[in-house]
Amino acid sequence: MTKKKTKGTLIVLSGPSGVGKSTVIAELLSEREDIHFSVSYTTRAPRVGEADGVDYCFVSREEFEGMIEREEFLEYAKYVDNYYGTSLKVIQDKLDQGVDVLLEIEVQGAATVKQKCPDAVLIFVIPPTFEELSRRLHGRATDDESVIQGRLERAKKEYQHIPLYDYLVINDSVPNATQEILSILAAEGCRVKQRLPMIQTQIEGVTAL
Amino acid sequence: MTKKKTKGTLIVLSGPSGVGKSTVIAELLSEREDIHFSVSYTTRAPRVGEADGVDYCFVSREEFEGMIEREEFLEYAKYVDNYYGTSLKVIQDKLDQGVDVLLEIEVQGAATVKQKCPDAVLIFVIPPTFEELSRRLHGRATDDESVIQGRLERAKKEYQHIPLYDYLVINDSVPNATQEILSILAAEGCRVKQRLPMIQTQIEGVTAL
Repeated sequence: MTKKKTKGTLIVLSGPSGVGKSTVIAELLSEREDIHFSVSYTTRAPRVGEADGVDYCFVSREEFEGMIEREEFLEYAKYVDNYYGTSLKVIQDKLDQGVDVLLEIEVQGAATVKQKCPDAVLIFVIPPTFEELSRRLHGRATDDESVIQGRLERAKKEYQHIPLYDYLVINDSVPNATQEILSILAAEGCRVKQRLPMIQTQIEGVTAL
Repeated sequence: MTKKKTKGTLIVLSGPSGVGKSTVIAELLSEREDIHFSVSYTTRAPRVGEADGVDYCFVSREEFEGMIEREEFLEYAKYVDNYYGTSLKVIQDKLDQGVDVLLEIEVQGAATVKQKCPDAVLIFVIPPTFEELSRRLHGRATDDESVIQGRLERAKKEYQHIPLYDYLVINDSVPNATQEILSILAAEGCRVKQRLPMIQTQIEGVTAL
């Protein structure tokens, strides 16, 4: 069932490294092909298997700093000497076209987005237990122990920001987590503020009776 | 998947007479048997087919006014010389047990509930068009034309209260409307404020690491 929206919903997804955000997002986008996934800009080097324009838009530090100066970012942040940022223009165009836009960003960026776009829907994904997160990070075997410990330390700090978010999704399994996000998006589409413009005609018809 | 909640969600469903609330509620309760449907008290006479304790708790005016005096109602209102009210105690007990409670009440009652229980989730059901509502009311053939016109007039007034509600569900078909309400309830169960207490242990574990 398609119910025309006047404006797209901005969806922000965050969660600790290793919680499975990428897998959940891939599943979500296969269920909801109409969602535009906003690819972040970064100055960090691509990991094995990462493609430019798909996982990130990989740019040089000079390019990134030029974009900062031209105020082309909705939000940006610096981590471990690398920049990460979200382009404003693409998102705004999509939202204006009525397309839902999904951002995967960290907690500081999410706070900035919530401030600039109060209607954004903020979702934080957590593992079923913190031990499970540690297990998943060790299981990836792409990082050495000090990097893993750094990620766990950062996860601890990120948990403190959960009250900033609207929804908390527990990734105990990818289908469960995806289903919860689908329900959240369906519910957000039913919000009075989303539908009031759409039913204005109906209300006007009623008033005129 | 069952995720234990510390407190049930209070769900308020409103909508104009003839929009199909009863049918949608029956479908919803068959999908979510764990929801407690709160039966309202009324002083009006039962219609054909209505059962005491199922459709309403039918009481005398004296009984109802006694309950008002003993402050036993979460909300009550008077329509066309009849009282309608929602018992406070049953609802509070259920919510405390972690059970979701569904109320079907009109707009004034919904406003009172929102004031007394700010966490209540208010859902307004509308027909796909106002003409369709008129058609449905005429199709019931239980009421004469003046009663139908009165219901349509009242619907017009009720529409003005839609901004008070959180969600707007369009009953273009019972399965669609039910699915939207199921999504809303699933999403509300993912709210950070619902899950924070549940994951307190996880957070404390993280902080203690």
